Amino acid sequence: MDDKNLLLKAFNEAEYRLPGHGKRNVQVLKEALDAVEDTLESDHYGAGQVIEDFQNKMATMLGKETAVFFPSGTMAQQIALRIWCDVKKLKRVAYHPLCHLEIHEEGGLKELHHIESVLLADKDRLIQLEDVRQMPEDIACLLLELPQREIGGQLPEYEELEAISAYCRSKGIKLHMDGARLLEVTPYYQKTAAEISSLFDSVYISVYKGIGGIAGAVLAGESDFIQESKVWKRRHGGDLISLYPYILSADYYFNLRQDKMQQYYREAKELAALYNECHGITTLPEVPVSNMFHVHAHVPKEKLEPVLVEIYKATGVGLTGYLTAAADTSCQYEVSIGDRYAEMPKEKLKAAFQMLDEKLRTLG
Amino acid sequence: MDDKNLLLKAFNEAEYRLPGHGKRNVQVLKEALDAVEDTLESDHYGAGQVIEDFQNKMATMLGKETAVFFPSGTMAQQIALRIWCDVKKLKRVAYHPLCHLEIHEEGGLKELHHIESVLLADKDRLIQLEDVRQMPEDIACLLLELPQREIGGQLPEYEELEAISAYCRSKGIKLHMDGARLLEVTPYYQKTAAEISSLFDSVYISVYKGIGGIAGAVLAGESDFIQESKVWKRRHGGDLISLYPYILSADYYFNLRQDKMQQYYREAKELAALYNECHGITTLPEVPVSNMFHVHAHVPKEKLEPVLVEIYKATGVGLTGYLTAAADTSCQYEVSIGDRYAEMPKEKLKAAFQMLDEKLRTLG
Repeated sequence: MDDKNLLLKAFNEAEYRLPGHGKRNVQVLKEALDAVEDTLESDHYGAGQVIEDFQNKMATMLGKETAVFFPSGTMAQQIALRIWCDVKKLKRVAYHPLCHLEIHEEGGLKELHHIESVLLADKDRLIQLEDVRQMPEDIACLLLELPQREIGGQLPEYEELEAISAYCRSKGIKLHMDGARLLEVTPYYQKTAAEISSLFDSVYISVYKGIGGIAGAVLAGESDFIQESKVWKRRHGGDLISLYPYILSADYYFNLRQDKMQQYYREAKELAALYNECHGITTLPEVPVSNMFHVHAHVPKEKLEPVLVEIYKATGVGLTGYLTAAADTSCQYEVSIGDRYAEMPKEKLKAAFQMLDEKLRTLG
Repeated sequence: MDDKNLLLKAFNEAEYRLPGHGKRNVQVLKEALDAVEDTLESDHYGAGQVIEDFQNKMATMLGKETAVFFPSGTMAQQIALRIWCDVKKLKRVAYHPLCHLEIHEEGGLKELHHIESVLLADKDRLIQLEDVRQMPEDIACLLLELPQREIGGQLPEYEELEAISAYCRSKGIKLHMDGARLLEVTPYYQKTAAEISSLFDSVYISVYKGIGGIAGAVLAGESDFIQESKVWKRRHGGDLISLYPYILSADYYFNLRQDKMQQYYREAKELAALYNECHGITTLPEVPVSNMFHVHAHVPKEKLEPVLVEIYKATGVGLTGYLTAAADTSCQYEVSIGDRYAEMPKEKLKAAFQMLDEKLRTLG
């Protein structure tokens, strides 16, 4: 077993684990299904009460005419951009250099849809109005990710978002939201999901981030757009005979957690403050604007790992299950707050961070 | 409520229904999960014990080096053909005019992969060795569907299949099997799934036809091919964070039904014989070669519908939930035998077919 697995093992064995909702095991699905009648009929290739009810609920929540459930965000977003490219008769879109489509999808947008991407902004900062103003005009669609996950979940100020939206509308450029974590930013913006979505032509949300479902995504927009997306969903192989295992769990955990986003946001700020008080640690953003942030430790990965294992064993508190080496002398990891943080006794938390601070001071 | 729904309603209310395994409701998933420990960890983007164990089991069953689980056959098969086209540097494949890729996938193979299809044979008969010999040589891959679903589930004789396989190998043409119902033809061929698969370079099977799972598919072949298919699976948006709801149910129902294919085949022959004794009805094939066949009634749809509703209400036996108008004077439907047929008391069955024969005679 290598060091990474030793850390993961110690994390999994810790009595309390700070990030997330809990283990992604079969119990998560069983709990969701317990609330459902045995006789509820499966959806059938995109039709049927179980899928239509949930789609209508999501359309209303997002303030859009209609919505469709997809097995994955990868599929939903490629299809959204493809439709806007076809509408605009332009095979080019713009997004952030660390956009999910650019770095996590094996180039599906290019390989399957032959759509070029124009990368806006530097990879370590948000897209700003100025970047959008300077982009080429032959762009079918601009994708904005709220929050920008790969840089710690940062957000533009709402006024900047409104200005970008107004600019795109004035130029006839479609605006698509990668809202994988949209619900998680509503407390910071003090806006509803529908209010934020009203700035965009199309919106994708994930059902297994803050919501904590099993898998799946929702794409919302006007009726023509959604109707076309269903044709592409079938082409991609996403129009399954039955999607209900994902839909029922998405609905169950949405109901359970939709009102907890304010709590996760508050807890993320509290936890980030604890990290920032530790020697040699900073968080990005310093003050979180959602339920997530990145921890940057100015210590080499191989030195921090045994320290973390020791802390987990001594205090019963697990901080992270992994570390990513960021440069020769530092490492980082992502923290997303879910249900587990609230279960942590405060004195345990204090003990763990006191020990972390002390250990980091001795490391220099 | 229109006539179609009246028929479906009467079928669903019938005490006994001849085709299928039963209603596709939430109980099907719950039953599969009851056998699973709550603490079993989810798969994670294609990795983890739950997906790897099932893939290994399917690879062994199909006699291939390795296998991968896909959310749908649509996705698995487009990807299989794409890989063979890339290997052969030819953007052209051959298959039957009623191939799933040609008629049920909104042209995904063309729209996403820019692959042309050459249609072999007439739509109402099987592909024969002679069709394969006469096809253009610049074909990357030939797809054969066993059994050919849209013409009642017909099969070539095994010797013809061997000859087609030998011809393709001699010409360097890849041979892919659409084995959505592969297990269902093993009793007729008196071969194992691995023996039949050995004639093909790649094999797809469905887990929700005879097996009766929730959704999903397995693609099997050599390691390089499967490795490449995982890259395309991610591009398509099929590499979900969790596929376990489909995998666990596929495994459960595979274990339950893998040895029942002989029974389904025998029952299909028995039921087809009952149909063929009725006035104005023939089945295709006349003697089934799997668990399925098509019923052709030489009566207009609008005349048969009220007759069927009357039979279901009088005898408690449901024969079909739908009819498709085939021409002005006839209609048809598909029958697939599953667990339900065996639950039918023989005297009920006899009464239903006696009434059907009598009613059809009065219709002329």
